[in-house]
Amino acid sequence: MKKKAVELRVTYADTDAMGVVYHTNYIKWFEVGRTEYMRDLGVVYSELEKEGYYLPVTEVYCHYLSPARYDECVQVVTTINFFRRASVRFDYEIYDANGAVMLAEGYTAHAFINREGKIVRAPKHVTEKIGTL
Amino acid sequence: MKKKAVELRVTYADTDAMGVVYHTNYIKWFEVGRTEYMRDLGVVYSELEKEGYYLPVTEVYCHYLSPARYDECVQVVTTINFFRRASVRFDYEIYDANGAVMLAEGYTAHAFINREGKIVRAPKHVTEKIGTL
Amino acid sequence: MKKKAVELRVTYADTDAMGVVYHTNYIKWFEVGRTEYMRDLGVVYSELEKEGYYLPVTEVYCHYLSPARYDECVQVVTTINFFRRASVRFDYEIYDANGAVMLAEGYTAHAFINREGKIVRAPKHVTEKIGTL
Amino acid sequence: MKKKAVELRVTYADTDAMGVVYHTNYIKWFEVGRTEYMRDLGVVYSELEKEGYYLPVTEVYCHYLSPARYDECVQVVTTINFFRRASVRFDYEIYDANGAVMLAEGYTAHAFINREGKIVRAPKHVTEKIGTL
Repeated sequence: MKKKAVELRVTYADTDAMGVVYHTNYIKWFEVGRTEYMRDLGVVYSELEKEGYYLPVTEVYCHYLSPARYDECVQVVTTINFFRRASVRFDYEIYDANGAVMLAEGYTAHAFINREGKIVRAPKHVTEKIGTL
Repeated sequence: MKKKAVELRVTYADTDAMGVVYHTNYIKWFEVGRTEYMRDLGVVYSELEKEGYYLPVTEVYCHYLSPARYDECVQVVTTINFFRRASVRFDYEIYDANGAVMLAEGYTAHAFINREGKIVRAPKHVTEKIGTL
Repeated sequence: MKKKAVELRVTYADTDAMGVVYHTNYIKWFEVGRTEYMRDLGVVYSELEKEGYYLPVTEVYCHYLSPARYDECVQVVTTINFFRRASVRFDYEIYDANGAVMLAEGYTAHAFINREGKIVRAPKHVTEKIGTL
Repeated sequence: MKKKAVELRVTYADTDAMGVVYHTNYIKWFEVGRTEYMRDLGVVYSELEKEGYYLPVTEVYCHYLSPARYDECVQVVTTINFFRRASVRFDYEIYDANGAVMLAEGYTAHAFINREGKIVRAPKHVTEKIGTL
């Protein structure tokens, strides 16, 4: 399975009074991970929307192992292990800058919907691109 | 001039690694302040949007005097000192729970625009309600 | 089991370009839910920290059922179904203003740690308060 | 005066229901701008904190000219035009990906404080580095 790594740097805005990254911000990094994963695959999400497809999050899970701190770099490694004709699940692992320590892991599940919010099949070009994984 | 106070409680999500509220979050409180100020006046912003009017922020200023901390209550006091037919400015003061210490003060300026993003006159019912201040 | 409901209003800051609440913001509401649940129980989290106890999130899960929109009121209903001497899990249900439609449900798991980040037993007064549920 | 440009990509998390970037998120980009500006100058803010110096925001101003949208790249151009022994002001311009359209401009003012929150002179190595601008 294809994997895609993205590097991000922790900002002050990401942190909380415990001195570490606030837990929902790892989940915002998941968004960056899946967007770049898809872009690499040739699927630009902003263009999908112009075609009338949306991929809202239906489920999110995150397991926190070790905190990230201000100004550290982290790596978000994304992959797809599950793809059905109307849904997709992305799996994520977040590592420290060296890739030595796993900080968090999790997944997001998504449904393909149209402009009216109805669940629809993924467009053919997406199915083909993900199908080649 | 009419003033409207709203009480909010600081969450962990609002704080940063300095142990205090991250500076942009006071500006998010300004949003709550002006929304409730207008609601009090009889102008529900979400309904304005349904009528085709939007009030994007064109300018923001904030002066930080004393930090707010996790779990403290703060008061956002909002007023309007400037209103033209296509723009409005809200002034804000943020106080601690007792109203004894000013934590921040600032303003936001807004333009009235329509769905196409063109600057337009404020709707008549808004002008009348603000005009009575 | 004791339940505690908290009402919140959706701000513009909570929303995203899909016109609904961005998915991580429901998880920020979970924080408000558990803080007020504990406060009701007589456990003020900010005081726990002063005693040297922290409750970082070790796991989060959220299932999204129906989107919340700008300016709507939502209810966060929190309960505890799992409590061990060094960990606790909060369960959440988020409803629309009338409590008629469930928008999301999920949980957060937490470990009790001390200032050095070592896992420790929950303080006795917390165990007693939660034990009475 | 030295200028430093940083490129960022707009995430879904940055946007709001108007379909554009929520106004406080431009100010979060200012943070990235000044951090990288200082890093370029040889001043790593996270190390400054370890030396016991903090640079909280005392004022922020932002003027919004044209909205940024989901998945667009933006450039944050930062400079310092004002530096006193205990305070510094950063000026920012935010442009679209090509640098052709200015989206926002603003500034943040900061005080140098120590761990006790008392205003102090900037450390000598910072004064020297900024002084060479």
